[in-house]
Amino acid sequence: MKDLALSKVYQLLEPGPAVLLTTAHKGRANIMTMSWHMMVEFEPPLVACVVSNANYSFAALRATKECVIAIPALKLAPIVVEIGNCSGRDADKFKRFSLTPELAERVTPPLVAECFANLECRVIDTRLVNAFNIFILEVVKAWIDPAQKNPKTIHHHGYGNFVVDGEMIKLKSKKP
Amino acid sequence: MKDLALSKVYQLLEPGPAVLLTTAHKGRANIMTMSWHMMVEFEPPLVACVVSNANYSFAALRATKECVIAIPALKLAPIVVEIGNCSGRDADKFKRFSLTPELAERVTPPLVAECFANLECRVIDTRLVNAFNIFILEVVKAWIDPAQKNPKTIHHHGYGNFVVDGEMIKLKSKKP
Repeated sequence: MKDLALSKVYQLLEPGPAVLLTTAHKGRANIMTMSWHMMVEFEPPLVACVVSNANYSFAALRATKECVIAIPALKLAPIVVEIGNCSGRDADKFKRFSLTPELAERVTPPLVAECFANLECRVIDTRLVNAFNIFILEVVKAWIDPAQKNPKTIHHHGYGNFVVDGEMIKLKSKKP
Repeated sequence: MKDLALSKVYQLLEPGPAVLLTTAHKGRANIMTMSWHMMVEFEPPLVACVVSNANYSFAALRATKECVIAIPALKLAPIVVEIGNCSGRDADKFKRFSLTPELAERVTPPLVAECFANLECRVIDTRLVNAFNIFILEVVKAWIDPAQKNPKTIHHHGYGNFVVDGEMIKLKSKKP
């Protein structure tokens, strides 16, 4: 994993990929699948996400205020879905899915070595947690795997239907 | 435009398409491009979005608490970028880009007839507007254009680079 400039993080999340979210609580790491997230600010990169209070990860995120957003490419799609199909209550999902937890630099939850990007995050606002399960995160450190060239991400349309990234088009924009 | 069940709205926004947002204020409609949005709840569909206070639409959205999220397909991509390149301060963007405003049913801002889906929204929470420009919307009415079959959406990666929807894959999921 190689450093990624924080100013480029929005280019990874703005397109709406299904991602993984890791937490660590009471000595135990967990991982969930998440599609409800958005950029909030470019730099420092702020991200909003919804982690339902029905998810096992909710208590960990609320208590520790730390997580890692790991972005999987297409080849991980079957695992991304399976991670969403089971709960950390019942299983060590890193073991079950043979995913490699890697030490993060600024937070306790692990990176996911198989993902092409990993974003270490701290919760900076919880005002909308009770009403909407919305957490506001600051990305404090970002990693990219240079060995995964032009990774295609997946975009959830409901019930296990995913659209895979197609062609890239370039239009003349004045905006970042 | 045909009715779309509110329970299906998340399937349109969760994949992260670049969208248009219309507002109406003091007798004038405006339209902006937006990529920072996420689902918050399935039904009634709740959506969070970031509308920067640097955008002309910000004041309209804050004052009227109404907007329409219009989802463009690939063929509108050049217009989507151009809409982001100029401000409603200087131009009537519906006229400039030959877009057709259509009457909405539950809100004052217009639908965009050329978009394949239109979501009429009301602002239901503004607690994070001052800190993060985050508005929480409820979708109160949704429309879909049955004439646009299998529309491909576009996903912004920064500086006018967009990934176009590729193939759809189907995986076995227990989740909506």
